[in-house]
Amino acid sequence: MRTFINDNFLLQSETAKKLYFGYAKDMPIIDFHCHLSPREVAEDAKWDNVFQVFLGGDHYKWRAMRSNGVEEKYITGDAPDREKFEKFAQTMPKLLRNPIYHWTHLELARYFGIYELLSPKTSQLIWDKANEVLQGGLSARECMRRYGVKAVCTTDDPTSDLRWHKKIADDKFETKVLPTFRPDKACAVENPRAYVQYIDELSAACGSKISDFDDLLSALKSRHDYFNSAGCRLSDNGTSTIWYEEATPAELNAIFRKATSGGKLSKIETAKFKSAFLTECAVMDFDAGWTTQLHIGPMRNNNTKMFELIGADTGFDSIGESNYAYTLSRHLDRLNSRGKLGRTILYNLHPKDNEMLATMLGNFQDSYCPGKIQLGSGWWFLDQLDGMKRQLEALSQLGLLSRFVGMLTDSRSFLSYSRHEYFRRNLCNILGGEMESGLLPDDIGLVGETVSDISFRNAESYFNL
Amino acid sequence: MRTFINDNFLLQSETAKKLYFGYAKDMPIIDFHCHLSPREVAEDAKWDNVFQVFLGGDHYKWRAMRSNGVEEKYITGDAPDREKFEKFAQTMPKLLRNPIYHWTHLELARYFGIYELLSPKTSQLIWDKANEVLQGGLSARECMRRYGVKAVCTTDDPTSDLRWHKKIADDKFETKVLPTFRPDKACAVENPRAYVQYIDELSAACGSKISDFDDLLSALKSRHDYFNSAGCRLSDNGTSTIWYEEATPAELNAIFRKATSGGKLSKIETAKFKSAFLTECAVMDFDAGWTTQLHIGPMRNNNTKMFELIGADTGFDSIGESNYAYTLSRHLDRLNSRGKLGRTILYNLHPKDNEMLATMLGNFQDSYCPGKIQLGSGWWFLDQLDGMKRQLEALSQLGLLSRFVGMLTDSRSFLSYSRHEYFRRNLCNILGGEMESGLLPDDIGLVGETVSDISFRNAESYFNL
Amino acid sequence: MRTFINDNFLLQSETAKKLYFGYAKDMPIIDFHCHLSPREVAEDAKWDNVFQVFLGGDHYKWRAMRSNGVEEKYITGDAPDREKFEKFAQTMPKLLRNPIYHWTHLELARYFGIYELLSPKTSQLIWDKANEVLQGGLSARECMRRYGVKAVCTTDDPTSDLRWHKKIADDKFETKVLPTFRPDKACAVENPRAYVQYIDELSAACGSKISDFDDLLSALKSRHDYFNSAGCRLSDNGTSTIWYEEATPAELNAIFRKATSGGKLSKIETAKFKSAFLTECAVMDFDAGWTTQLHIGPMRNNNTKMFELIGADTGFDSIGESNYAYTLSRHLDRLNSRGKLGRTILYNLHPKDNEMLATMLGNFQDSYCPGKIQLGSGWWFLDQLDGMKRQLEALSQLGLLSRFVGMLTDSRSFLSYSRHEYFRRNLCNILGGEMESGLLPDDIGLVGETVSDISFRNAESYFNL
Repeated sequence: MRTFINDNFLLQSETAKKLYFGYAKDMPIIDFHCHLSPREVAEDAKWDNVFQVFLGGDHYKWRAMRSNGVEEKYITGDAPDREKFEKFAQTMPKLLRNPIYHWTHLELARYFGIYELLSPKTSQLIWDKANEVLQGGLSARECMRRYGVKAVCTTDDPTSDLRWHKKIADDKFETKVLPTFRPDKACAVENPRAYVQYIDELSAACGSKISDFDDLLSALKSRHDYFNSAGCRLSDNGTSTIWYEEATPAELNAIFRKATSGGKLSKIETAKFKSAFLTECAVMDFDAGWTTQLHIGPMRNNNTKMFELIGADTGFDSIGESNYAYTLSRHLDRLNSRGKLGRTILYNLHPKDNEMLATMLGNFQDSYCPGKIQLGSGWWFLDQLDGMKRQLEALSQLGLLSRFVGMLTDSRSFLSYSRHEYFRRNLCNILGGEMESGLLPDDIGLVGETVSDISFRNAESYFNL
Repeated sequence: MRTFINDNFLLQSETAKKLYFGYAKDMPIIDFHCHLSPREVAEDAKWDNVFQVFLGGDHYKWRAMRSNGVEEKYITGDAPDREKFEKFAQTMPKLLRNPIYHWTHLELARYFGIYELLSPKTSQLIWDKANEVLQGGLSARECMRRYGVKAVCTTDDPTSDLRWHKKIADDKFETKVLPTFRPDKACAVENPRAYVQYIDELSAACGSKISDFDDLLSALKSRHDYFNSAGCRLSDNGTSTIWYEEATPAELNAIFRKATSGGKLSKIETAKFKSAFLTECAVMDFDAGWTTQLHIGPMRNNNTKMFELIGADTGFDSIGESNYAYTLSRHLDRLNSRGKLGRTILYNLHPKDNEMLATMLGNFQDSYCPGKIQLGSGWWFLDQLDGMKRQLEALSQLGLLSRFVGMLTDSRSFLSYSRHEYFRRNLCNILGGEMESGLLPDDIGLVGETVSDISFRNAESYFNL
Repeated sequence: MRTFINDNFLLQSETAKKLYFGYAKDMPIIDFHCHLSPREVAEDAKWDNVFQVFLGGDHYKWRAMRSNGVEEKYITGDAPDREKFEKFAQTMPKLLRNPIYHWTHLELARYFGIYELLSPKTSQLIWDKANEVLQGGLSARECMRRYGVKAVCTTDDPTSDLRWHKKIADDKFETKVLPTFRPDKACAVENPRAYVQYIDELSAACGSKISDFDDLLSALKSRHDYFNSAGCRLSDNGTSTIWYEEATPAELNAIFRKATSGGKLSKIETAKFKSAFLTECAVMDFDAGWTTQLHIGPMRNNNTKMFELIGADTGFDSIGESNYAYTLSRHLDRLNSRGKLGRTILYNLHPKDNEMLATMLGNFQDSYCPGKIQLGSGWWFLDQLDGMKRQLEALSQLGLLSRFVGMLTDSRSFLSYSRHEYFRRNLCNILGGEMESGLLPDDIGLVGETVSDISFRNAESYFNL
């Protein structure tokens, strides 16, 4: 009997199979954006049991369990791991058509050799078998080896000393683990108390006083240089929308001083600050030859009660909504006019923005490099079959699919490399189906090389890690 | 020759057929939101001819006829019923791919045993055959029996004395017909003249004076209690968007007095009032253990000329547009922080909001009950194949399809129960197709039970009518 | 071996083939909106080489080349045509899934009899073969004959003397080439310098002074009459959004005087002006029995550096974003209440607006004519498989597909008539597939006649050119 996860999972035509096995499966992985802990790589983390590795930090699964009516004590609370795993096993059959259903079974198959469907009937068996594999030595680094991961870019605060990245490099671990410069906290003037504290930390990290906007930029620049020397080649900004305002240096300095001395910023002051901040960070990236990433659109910490109980990044974020076509156009144009617009990846969280962004790219493409401005892969909530299909469709119809730098996990889990497989299978399924129906030429070499490019080679040449 | 409506209508795979006939077809119906007249159930309405039952109150069909260039006299005017029916028959072949084409032929088949396609060629035959069935006794209650309707929730103004619901209950009619508390008029401060008049009616209904916002809430609470005693377990709010503002009780009282004494409310006053109104109504629902429904997004009465001629709800409404992710988040969070967020169903009219809402659910799910916050079924203009597919896709990928309370008719017509069949066939077709292509496990029991849950059992346990 | 472009291109079922070959292929073309140069028709333009006819003015292809990293010198710069063509040939294999891949190969097949795929390997061969065809006499008029083009509506400024249209008419050329009245420049008060200059030109064209808004309308009316006498039956407005404000004639006159005398208009003044302008132009159209087109939503000239180098319409525009459901409703309602709402086609550039617009139509349909208010075909960036499918789906589910006036090229190229073929094949593929799966009746006559209507007959009777 055919298991659910089998060789042809997601591959619905013969041509799709040829593309996947011939041009995608064996390509290495460059996971250029994730939230892995570099310390866990450095220490080659192991896990006591399958709950820890599966559910210990995965707020996608926590949300799913809450949606199924599971009590918080079995999610982030103090119930024993085995009981929590049981609640997850009870939830699993309720997850039909949710990406977690695919991801979990793909992870069970690929890392644990388990092909049974997880449910209360199989939970004890799977708990035992998977724990055996964990005790047999499945570690953080082994997960990366399993999928041929060539490079990984973590997400790091500018204040980080990057000690773990250095240790990994000193170890000569075969996967490059590089930092990404994510200065979100240095932009978060909307929370004055936390902001003042953060500015102190940043000041300590770079050993210089930060009294105004110019100082802030100097401090960030010194950390940018430091990151660069550690092999960093990407930055990342997480932002609810894109602001665009013009402001003089004097205004920006005044806004910074107001924000750090107990004043309350007006909407327009906040927008001026954030607009200038994003611009100046992008200029640093351009000057260093880095790639700038903009992750646009989440609405975070919607549930105040739970935020107060268990903090941020615990599964209470959702898709926000704003009309930022104009401000993004102005932001990119300002950089372009200054000759400072470099490699840029735009990720949207609201799917309505797919097409708007896919056409925005074309406004600023040039001979700096092929596919200079990129539409990021389906992100966070959109990192699933429908989300990926729509991102691929928008990019294909309105831009150049063939220049796409492809998939990334954006994940906190070492098991997530199977999502690259998931993406590649989906990509091959779409292209193979269109070859068979005559929408694409019946030329396996032409389409296959495009598959290899998107799976690996484009990212390799674009990021040059 | 195969008729258009046949056993396998919409079921495009063998597995889809197995799912539909094995797990969906014979499930009872809980139609938890509709606009039927309880009086017509109480009196077991009959109709003189097929025009009356088909077109007498169906503004979907009126719109379609206008789009086909039919004169108003044959739609809502004084032309004889037979002539109006003829104009509808002329329009029908022009409705290919419109849901009315499917719905009408499904209704002709299921209630009248007619399998011919309606057109000018068949109109006389169908007129005669259908009228014969009507004269043979097809009545309001018979329509409900035909589809095994277990319960129906009508939509009722708080001032209603619910006499017809009581009569139906006294009759021991096998279908429960329960009221739904819809206090829209008590929130409509934007039309001061009508508002003042309505407040008088509400005051009369509950026998107490209404002079400020507190009085308004007391009056509504007394009607809420009255509805509860009549078996009501749901409320419903129809709203163009979601407002969120904070306001003190004193402010709200002042706004109410201004609105009812000829003052013109500012935008912010209106928003404060409506925001508080929605919150306080939801609190009443929570305290009574009811389900709160929010129908978000129509833009009504767009055609002033026709509104003045024939009034509201005549086919001149359309999809409105606003960015309400933030305000909805704040609205739900305020209730949640007060410990007053109960079962809630969010319905959107603009399809761009599917994914935003589907992720909003997850912010507030908890162990109160499985699937506590629901994404409502494709509503009004979206209650068609494409709209249903996209709602199911968003809910599946971003939430828990398996906990979905499913379909409702939202209809004014007793013939609409076939839309539950339409929904179930579509659902089975999607799931069956995915089983065959390996996207879902090849486990008919697992998927089939999910189908039965969505078709009936989830609504049964969620609403507990 | 089957060539990529072959008889059954895009036709994935037997029924789709029957529909296309039986009901679509041989229908004449009415291309009711394009940007062809009437002078080139009048002079029956010929081209030196395939670069000129393919790429000389096609900013879709320029964007694609920039996205592939091609230097501007090979796009709009001074490189020799053959070298530019080579860069295009290098880009072509990178365009898989982009509409240009389909369009280009369809154009090569239909106008040049070339079935090879364009790539660096075939570029010399295709260059030679295609140039031979050009030298053999493929001209502007011959392109139109090839596809049986019955009528073409160009896009013309009100100041145009229409001399080329007259010359074509005098020639008795078998294709009607008619002007379209596009008064965008007369509405562009946001660029005061260019506006003042344009008003002078308009004043010269109609020989009367323009000192206020009333004068402006009189001037436009006289040009409208002039266009009408030249056979014009459509107007067109390109607009970033829809404004709605009320304003008195005195206010409008004051705004006009301010705009033309160096004053800076406020946002609200601009909105009042533009709102009144669109309304008064639509009234002129109604009075003349014309069709009004609204092309809503582009964001233009996003790249300031390139705008300064090579000007407008060079490939630096993208999809804009605004919430205009309310203002559009008010705009149409104002016309309707004045009894001045005639045939109107609404085109959206943001695909999120498909459903909003498709329901807007229904608010204002009446017996003036069937399908009076139309949802325009997928436009500009949306004029591709996915965009067309979604437009057809929205129109079908929410309006009357069968009354659709169908496809137009919106093109600057004489080779674009194959896009009508592309549209028809796509339409037949959708309908044929649905006949086979039972979503549509298995009645080839019924569905086929609908295909013929959408391909040609609806436009013929709607525009009455």
